[in-house]
Amino acid sequence: MNLHPDYLLNEVNEPEDIKGMTLQQLQQLATEMRTLVLERDEKIGGHVGSNLGAMELTIALHYVFDSPHDKVIWDVSHQSYAHKMLTGRKLGFLDPDHYEDVTGYTSPEESDHDLFEVGHTSTSIALAVGEAEARDLQDPQSKDDVIAVIGDGSLSGGLAFEGLNNATKVKGNLIIVVNDNEMSIDENQGGLYQGLKDLRASNGQAANNIFTFMGLDYRYVEDGNDLATMIEAFRGVKDVDHPVVLHVHTLKGKGFRPAEEEKMRYHWRSPFDPKTGADLQPAPKETYSGAIIDELERLIEAGTPIAAINAAIPGAFDLKRFEKKYPDRYFDVGIAEQMSVSSAVAMAQAGIRPVLFENSTFLQRAYDQLIHDMALNGEPVVMIVRNGSIKENSATHQGSFDIAYLSSLPNVDYLAPTSVEELISMLDWALTQAENPVIIRQPEQKLLHRPATQDNYDTIDYEIAHQGSEVAIMAVGGFWELGEEVLAQLKSKLNIDATLINPKTVTNIDQQDLHYLQEDHDLVVTLEDGMVAGGFGETISRYYGPTNMKVLNFGSQREFADNVPLDVMYEWYHLTPEQIVDDIERVLHSSL
Amino acid sequence: MNLHPDYLLNEVNEPEDIKGMTLQQLQQLATEMRTLVLERDEKIGGHVGSNLGAMELTIALHYVFDSPHDKVIWDVSHQSYAHKMLTGRKLGFLDPDHYEDVTGYTSPEESDHDLFEVGHTSTSIALAVGEAEARDLQDPQSKDDVIAVIGDGSLSGGLAFEGLNNATKVKGNLIIVVNDNEMSIDENQGGLYQGLKDLRASNGQAANNIFTFMGLDYRYVEDGNDLATMIEAFRGVKDVDHPVVLHVHTLKGKGFRPAEEEKMRYHWRSPFDPKTGADLQPAPKETYSGAIIDELERLIEAGTPIAAINAAIPGAFDLKRFEKKYPDRYFDVGIAEQMSVSSAVAMAQAGIRPVLFENSTFLQRAYDQLIHDMALNGEPVVMIVRNGSIKENSATHQGSFDIAYLSSLPNVDYLAPTSVEELISMLDWALTQAENPVIIRQPEQKLLHRPATQDNYDTIDYEIAHQGSEVAIMAVGGFWELGEEVLAQLKSKLNIDATLINPKTVTNIDQQDLHYLQEDHDLVVTLEDGMVAGGFGETISRYYGPTNMKVLNFGSQREFADNVPLDVMYEWYHLTPEQIVDDIERVLHSSL
Repeated sequence: MNLHPDYLLNEVNEPEDIKGMTLQQLQQLATEMRTLVLERDEKIGGHVGSNLGAMELTIALHYVFDSPHDKVIWDVSHQSYAHKMLTGRKLGFLDPDHYEDVTGYTSPEESDHDLFEVGHTSTSIALAVGEAEARDLQDPQSKDDVIAVIGDGSLSGGLAFEGLNNATKVKGNLIIVVNDNEMSIDENQGGLYQGLKDLRASNGQAANNIFTFMGLDYRYVEDGNDLATMIEAFRGVKDVDHPVVLHVHTLKGKGFRPAEEEKMRYHWRSPFDPKTGADLQPAPKETYSGAIIDELERLIEAGTPIAAINAAIPGAFDLKRFEKKYPDRYFDVGIAEQMSVSSAVAMAQAGIRPVLFENSTFLQRAYDQLIHDMALNGEPVVMIVRNGSIKENSATHQGSFDIAYLSSLPNVDYLAPTSVEELISMLDWALTQAENPVIIRQPEQKLLHRPATQDNYDTIDYEIAHQGSEVAIMAVGGFWELGEEVLAQLKSKLNIDATLINPKTVTNIDQQDLHYLQEDHDLVVTLEDGMVAGGFGETISRYYGPTNMKVLNFGSQREFADNVPLDVMYEWYHLTPEQIVDDIERVLHSSL
Repeated sequence: MNLHPDYLLNEVNEPEDIKGMTLQQLQQLATEMRTLVLERDEKIGGHVGSNLGAMELTIALHYVFDSPHDKVIWDVSHQSYAHKMLTGRKLGFLDPDHYEDVTGYTSPEESDHDLFEVGHTSTSIALAVGEAEARDLQDPQSKDDVIAVIGDGSLSGGLAFEGLNNATKVKGNLIIVVNDNEMSIDENQGGLYQGLKDLRASNGQAANNIFTFMGLDYRYVEDGNDLATMIEAFRGVKDVDHPVVLHVHTLKGKGFRPAEEEKMRYHWRSPFDPKTGADLQPAPKETYSGAIIDELERLIEAGTPIAAINAAIPGAFDLKRFEKKYPDRYFDVGIAEQMSVSSAVAMAQAGIRPVLFENSTFLQRAYDQLIHDMALNGEPVVMIVRNGSIKENSATHQGSFDIAYLSSLPNVDYLAPTSVEELISMLDWALTQAENPVIIRQPEQKLLHRPATQDNYDTIDYEIAHQGSEVAIMAVGGFWELGEEVLAQLKSKLNIDATLINPKTVTNIDQQDLHYLQEDHDLVVTLEDGMVAGGFGETISRYYGPTNMKVLNFGSQREFADNVPLDVMYEWYHLTPEQIVDDIERVLHSSL
């Protein structure tokens, strides 16, 4: 049910509908939409501060420009809620029954006003340059403007710079709106933000200006949360015949005191209580991240020269606690994953033991640094990777590529613990040895307690948790409990006493154990929480390829899944214990 | 034999040995080393212009600083020849018998003066920041300087910017030498180089300065090819207690007229005649690149709105010819692979048909853009990938990861033609369809002529080039001739009339053909010119995993191979026809 049938927003179906409004009406829209952002985020979670801060900017943008003829490209696009409300998707914010109809990122499937599906940062200028170049190639007389809206920290990613560097070459209109809210996800990191601060302090007049240095025209707006000012600013750059940067100063969280004050906490929130601000789902007491930080503290006190590195996501790893205790040992490089990996490699070369904290979907940006800097040089970087998993998520943030791109790295171990004890055991070993980079895949499932069965992982000894025959189940990391369920159902349904194996790693194999399995097993089943293409299971299939052993690989398919509930995905991918047991039965009875 | 026993360089075993030399002697060293660079490059090929241009800079660096206590990190490191000569590896330049003992890039295995193995650009600042932070963490009183030498175009890569942004945070000494020779590999691309030009024009005095904007101290040197000037400049920054940029203007190719005049041509040369400058191995008349450019011209004339995009390597694809004819349709984004992919995605969105030209080892840098921008948005970008191959190369430039990282991309076809006709047929189809991104793997083997057997690749129909039984050989792309040889030897040695298949793609399978193979084949053999880990063969192993069909995958191992001759690598990886036939025989006779 539409909670606000009285809202003026109900009259807006297209940006066209706001063009006749008075300033007062536009301001009313801003107030309404702020309420709606909060209502939705409180209920289903989402980005808070950046959407509140970009409200006037967005209204003014659609008031002045003519989307979709003029092309607006939102960086990260997590600040596109107001844009969505003004472009036909207001019900996704007015009516809780329709909250889930509208994603948290721009989506061409939802609307012609969204050019790209975007969830990673720093892409908008590059995309806008391509868009403008294509326009000029097809119709040099075109009057369509191309507008990139970048900011909220995303200017620090290398691609943003590559985009700025190439923007100068655009011969027609290109408007780069730098939404400068003084924040990255966490505090802004690095010299760039000092420069931007000097620009703000001089009301955009400082001669030292990275944008004009790179040959771009430049305008500054001090109060980006004032509608009339923003309308005037956009009118000033509309239809200009060359690339121009509009540097806009806004307040992240604007209009909602808690979000203005705790910018980091209110960047993204899971559902929360509007009165107390507390999470509706309280955090679990015991977490993998917490155990890792505890262990690092113990090791530092024991003399290990550890440094903790992350790229603008300390909250995902409980790293604020680490920073508080060891400020000198804590490094946040900003949204700059390439930097995080390369600098860690150098620290390791120099005798420090860097521990990198990465999210699988963002680590993708450092793939070359993983190969060329880390793996090739073999420096003993230690890395914790989160979100390498099949989970309900925006397709933009799908983390299930990790095994494909990490397990092909030479000289690198990618370990997959099943429990907190095993994870800590692997972390201890990783920080003791100095031979190779070691990556540890943090399980996304609920925390398990199981003892580790080895403490030196130079050579992997598979854990044979249950010795049976006929079928062997290899359950990787977070899929351990799934393996146990399959074991139980094989017994109860097919009366098969199967073997259950913890392979501990996705990069190496225990050849001896695999060899001996051939004596009394006909089928090996691999279960991994990730894509089968390029995954662990394929390594096992390849190993047994020249033999009579049959192999069945379970995992997700090579595709994107956008906000699909986990149980639906598990059904798709045959990942329920019932489906797995059925598939096993079929193979055992097949004559092929 | 040492060709120059009379050279002063013979007395230099360590940088220490030049510290007592007079300016005249140092200049003599520069002259000698220029001769040696040319002699070696003429004979075995290598980087010419950048090494000639950085001669005085390198001598002054080692004269003033105290390597390896002071840490020098060379960007790209293809300009490190003089550094190598001064740090114990002069014989690799004086004596042709020892040319091959010394690689063209820095190498910790060769010398303690080399911190990292580096061959890709834009990494040095990030590495130097990590090195300096590690130093300060371990010993805040340390007097060791950390020096990054970046330039020759590598400043345009996003990681260089991420490094600059984080450099400000270093609390102690950090010296960033920007070797500004006005060039990328090709001409410099983008606004950054306009800004640097303005800095040069003002003798470093311009207020608008990207380095000081980002909070870095800054000094300028106009004549970076003058030894006394460079010594003074380095003395000026030695032991400063904060990060400083030393912007040095040099002449690429300095001292060798042809290299000064044809900077692009003399960036890297294969062996050439010192008198005429001609390549010793003349270019083949017919090339895949040439055929691609011809076809693009034909399609443009027929009305297809094509744009050709590359990241600073037009020479590798004959693109200068394209640029000459279609300057508006030609885009070189500089060394900025992320930019090349994202801007191509936007062009495709806007109705242009972009064709991207990439080298596998550099494309690694755009992995996230391939997933998040290209595959997720499904825009019909067309891409040609070179050097996806097992070949004799520096480990820094190993291109054999491509199948692992490209074949796991959703929505993307990665096609592997065996011949020029098939490649052109695939290119035509890729530019006709508008459903998906299509990547084409250009074979690295000698050009073959074979007709294409389909012209619409929506669904792949395997080409069964020879129908036999018992063993089926799937020979991918450039390994087609290897497949034919294996076919012949299976017949002559084992009297097996095998089947030979051209699978055409590494991302999809022809399920029908694979299914029918089971009727009269016991073994499928996959041959691919790349890594088996995450490769095409594993897809086939997975497909047949649950069946009685045996599978053998051939390709390279998950490891780096540094300048290993191709025949040696083929032996390692069991890639000779004899070894493959032996392995097949073993499997056919095995009871396992």
